[in-house]
Amino acid sequence: MSGKERLIYLPLGGAGEIGMNAYVYGYGAPGKERLILVDIGVTFPDMDTTPGVDLIYADIAWLEERRDRLEAIFITHAHEDHVGALGLAWGRLGAPVYARPFTANHAARKMEERGQDPEQVTVVDRWPYRVEAGPFEVAFLPVSHSIPESSSMVIDCPAGRIVHTGDFKLDLTPLVGEPFDRALWAEVAKPGIKVLTCDSTNVFSPHPGRSEATLGPAIRQLVERAPAMVVATTFASNIARVRTLAEAGRDAGRSVCLMGRAMRRMIEAGVESGVLTDFPTTISPEQAADIPRENLMLIVTGSQGERRAASAQLSRGKYMGLDLKEGDLFLFSSKTIPGNERDVLRIVNAFSEMGVDVVDDSADLYHVSGHANRPDLSQIHQLMKPEVVVPMHGEHRHLREHVKLAEENGLPAVLAPNGTMLDLTGKTPKVAEHVEAGRTYLDGKAQIGALDGVVRDRIRMALNGHLTVSVMLDEDDEPLGEPWVDLMGLPETVPGGAALSELLEQALDRFLSRADDKVLTDDDLLEKDLRIIARRTAENEIGKRPEVKVVISRLA
Amino acid sequence: MSGKERLIYLPLGGAGEIGMNAYVYGYGAPGKERLILVDIGVTFPDMDTTPGVDLIYADIAWLEERRDRLEAIFITHAHEDHVGALGLAWGRLGAPVYARPFTANHAARKMEERGQDPEQVTVVDRWPYRVEAGPFEVAFLPVSHSIPESSSMVIDCPAGRIVHTGDFKLDLTPLVGEPFDRALWAEVAKPGIKVLTCDSTNVFSPHPGRSEATLGPAIRQLVERAPAMVVATTFASNIARVRTLAEAGRDAGRSVCLMGRAMRRMIEAGVESGVLTDFPTTISPEQAADIPRENLMLIVTGSQGERRAASAQLSRGKYMGLDLKEGDLFLFSSKTIPGNERDVLRIVNAFSEMGVDVVDDSADLYHVSGHANRPDLSQIHQLMKPEVVVPMHGEHRHLREHVKLAEENGLPAVLAPNGTMLDLTGKTPKVAEHVEAGRTYLDGKAQIGALDGVVRDRIRMALNGHLTVSVMLDEDDEPLGEPWVDLMGLPETVPGGAALSELLEQALDRFLSRADDKVLTDDDLLEKDLRIIARRTAENEIGKRPEVKVVISRLA
Repeated sequence: MSGKERLIYLPLGGAGEIGMNAYVYGYGAPGKERLILVDIGVTFPDMDTTPGVDLIYADIAWLEERRDRLEAIFITHAHEDHVGALGLAWGRLGAPVYARPFTANHAARKMEERGQDPEQVTVVDRWPYRVEAGPFEVAFLPVSHSIPESSSMVIDCPAGRIVHTGDFKLDLTPLVGEPFDRALWAEVAKPGIKVLTCDSTNVFSPHPGRSEATLGPAIRQLVERAPAMVVATTFASNIARVRTLAEAGRDAGRSVCLMGRAMRRMIEAGVESGVLTDFPTTISPEQAADIPRENLMLIVTGSQGERRAASAQLSRGKYMGLDLKEGDLFLFSSKTIPGNERDVLRIVNAFSEMGVDVVDDSADLYHVSGHANRPDLSQIHQLMKPEVVVPMHGEHRHLREHVKLAEENGLPAVLAPNGTMLDLTGKTPKVAEHVEAGRTYLDGKAQIGALDGVVRDRIRMALNGHLTVSVMLDEDDEPLGEPWVDLMGLPETVPGGAALSELLEQALDRFLSRADDKVLTDDDLLEKDLRIIARRTAENEIGKRPEVKVVISRLA
Repeated sequence: MSGKERLIYLPLGGAGEIGMNAYVYGYGAPGKERLILVDIGVTFPDMDTTPGVDLIYADIAWLEERRDRLEAIFITHAHEDHVGALGLAWGRLGAPVYARPFTANHAARKMEERGQDPEQVTVVDRWPYRVEAGPFEVAFLPVSHSIPESSSMVIDCPAGRIVHTGDFKLDLTPLVGEPFDRALWAEVAKPGIKVLTCDSTNVFSPHPGRSEATLGPAIRQLVERAPAMVVATTFASNIARVRTLAEAGRDAGRSVCLMGRAMRRMIEAGVESGVLTDFPTTISPEQAADIPRENLMLIVTGSQGERRAASAQLSRGKYMGLDLKEGDLFLFSSKTIPGNERDVLRIVNAFSEMGVDVVDDSADLYHVSGHANRPDLSQIHQLMKPEVVVPMHGEHRHLREHVKLAEENGLPAVLAPNGTMLDLTGKTPKVAEHVEAGRTYLDGKAQIGALDGVVRDRIRMALNGHLTVSVMLDEDDEPLGEPWVDLMGLPETVPGGAALSELLEQALDRFLSRADDKVLTDDDLLEKDLRIIARRTAENEIGKRPEVKVVISRLA
């Protein structure tokens, strides 16, 4: 290994949030490193901070500027926060994409959806198969998670071996996909691990994780005992869970119907790629409508309360010819992700109004997490014995706690949030540089930066309302008629009962009738003054300062 | 009791949500009942459904129309969701207000804040003292909760005795305020209870509730062992908790500083009204700045992550001369209310970035709920043995579950969400009527209805952006110059790179130059067509359909 070359690590997304994963590794002379990207996922917008936005992914400007040095993109697994931005970002990066079959099926679809060539996605085999990417050799090491075919990346370069876990848990009986194989991991660890870049999601969960296989009996019992229709929701990508639910339905003598596009597509992808076999026969919603409720089980999308998903549609009434009735059972075989509580509870209460019994996972019977808990992380630390642990896939609090845990386990660890470029070459990792790390919004068809001000203006309009002020000026710059206003998102009447628009128009007219030539001839000045008058009047009358657009129409 | 008279119950708020409590009871000939109101609280807005709104309370139009029949308003306790709307609503209702001293202190302030006469609030004594209010006699029965002086209402009328629990728990050692007194409750129950209107908040919590007094040792240990500054947050109104925290600080040799207006005001009100004695000496933030961190404990507002509260201010940097540093400890002696998770986690992660250790209640050590859990509710059912249980104070799912629980306990129960008027006169409660039950928003200084469309327009602007289209027409109704657009909350450039405003202006100009007289002379038609063109063009170019305001300036 030349002393002049270095190994760098740069998280652009995922290290500071749970979502929009994007991790860069590089090897070479400083500033000339050859690069690879592991995962390129999305995160989802919310009304508080990103109203109107469709999807969010990491700001990849740093990587785009160095696209000539990018050797390859690797996708660890098919969750949206790992592959969801592939099609959006690919045109800006243009490197070959590698993934295992089930994951590649999704990656190719992500490419197609955004008008990119799905053939850029190469299907690869699992470890010990290796992809050469410049100075790197990369292998897909099977690991268990809540979606089939999840893989850790074994990344070899002249500086040593990196294991980038991706999302994982230590499940010996995951039902679909590969179990965690301790012997295989030990084999990988044998030559010595330089860096363990490691999932941090569940670092605060104190008990060892439970296997997917532990859920079957409780779910079966619940479905068997239900007196009428059973509807269950879970993440569509958790194919093992969907199969467990479907089998519980079938074993209870129920016809099983999958509802929601993602649910049907995931099962299809599972069958096509060979990871899913012997899934129970399903029926269509049309067929389901003719079957007695007590012989029916629906498995539906929308475990997080998503407004357009099947669960939310059913909570509002009939959906695809089916509806829930008093005595039916609705099962959340899922955990509510922080931030989604209100959406989920809205659905639960709507079902309650219908007389439907809702069962969730508060008793820890019907869901297990897909991530390694604290003791499981310690197991991996001890098994891999890396020179350094780099926590990833977590909010700042998770990364920080994971550093502490690694140190408790006797391993050096370094906290590197998004934008922190680490030089991992020597014995001790150093921060090499801080890179601007932000977010890119997909907004309709446009991609906008988080700091462009577009979303800030939307939030302001939502909080303050909007006011259009219109004035006309003649050839001599004299007001022509009176100014008028249009309100949007503002109360029509003020507390005393008068019309807000009239009060505003009076105030603006008073100002205009007294304004001198200096103001009337200067659009910028006139606009500024009219805005001030309008906001001040609104504040006095209704206690709000609206966003104001001034339209000046001049004959001159 | 005349067969022609009836006892009615009508929840206007609180039965279908946790918040904005407002319960009406009436007795008399149908349509001529004399009325009382128990509680008039607020609920808090959120960006998803009520952007820009300041406070929300129950739509009291029904009661306002019958204000000549309203005898009195009773406030059970000083939580915002029970007293917060008193000042807002009082001008519309105008009835005498009754509360116990600490609660009355807050009620009077709520009146003053909204320009109402605080003298309308009468301070009353606890049971067996009774207030006469038309056909009702009402007494304040002490009960434990997470604020001092919480009371259940014992409401006697010719139809029998109602116990309206308000918020409560069965705490024998609440530290501040009165313990739950089983003998007293048994005495109240002795003549027989017709109706138990009962808190439902914790009906899903399976274990018996824990006393406030159980927290002291764990909190003390945590504070003692902390190596640097300790900052703790809880609801300011939980005076017992604030005192426990302050005592833990004092006992560990720390100076105690209260931060946040609500925190200081609550302690003052507690002392003034006599419910709080022997609170440790506190120092001001200015004094605190001079004290070594390891000898300091701050008790601050903002347990729910509220943006303007002290905890959020401290998470953003220096606040009132104090800031957190690496090694400090921040304690959430509280539970996150569903919907506030994101705000709370934002603060936790900000502290994590500062190197502050955050401790929350995930280990069940540092917080207890103020509401009766499922077994506690059963105890009350059995103690009171009412003819009917009417669950209140809960989302629909809580009310429904509470009905089931009462039935399990052998008691009839009836689910009456907001707007359901029950006739409770006979042996079996009947639904007498459905009343329009909605929400009123305080928006700046204005009060607006939830269905006025104001907030809907704000949400649309937030999701879709806003576009102003301006055109001028001369005396002959011919376009004068070209139309122009102004964007707000919309991307400036389209995916191809062109300016969105130019593309819109071109499209609008093309339309205008071809428009015939029929369109050009008709403002409504012209506005409609321009809006369609603008939205269609925006949708094609950026995939969004903005809200459009068309400004037509005519010389004619």
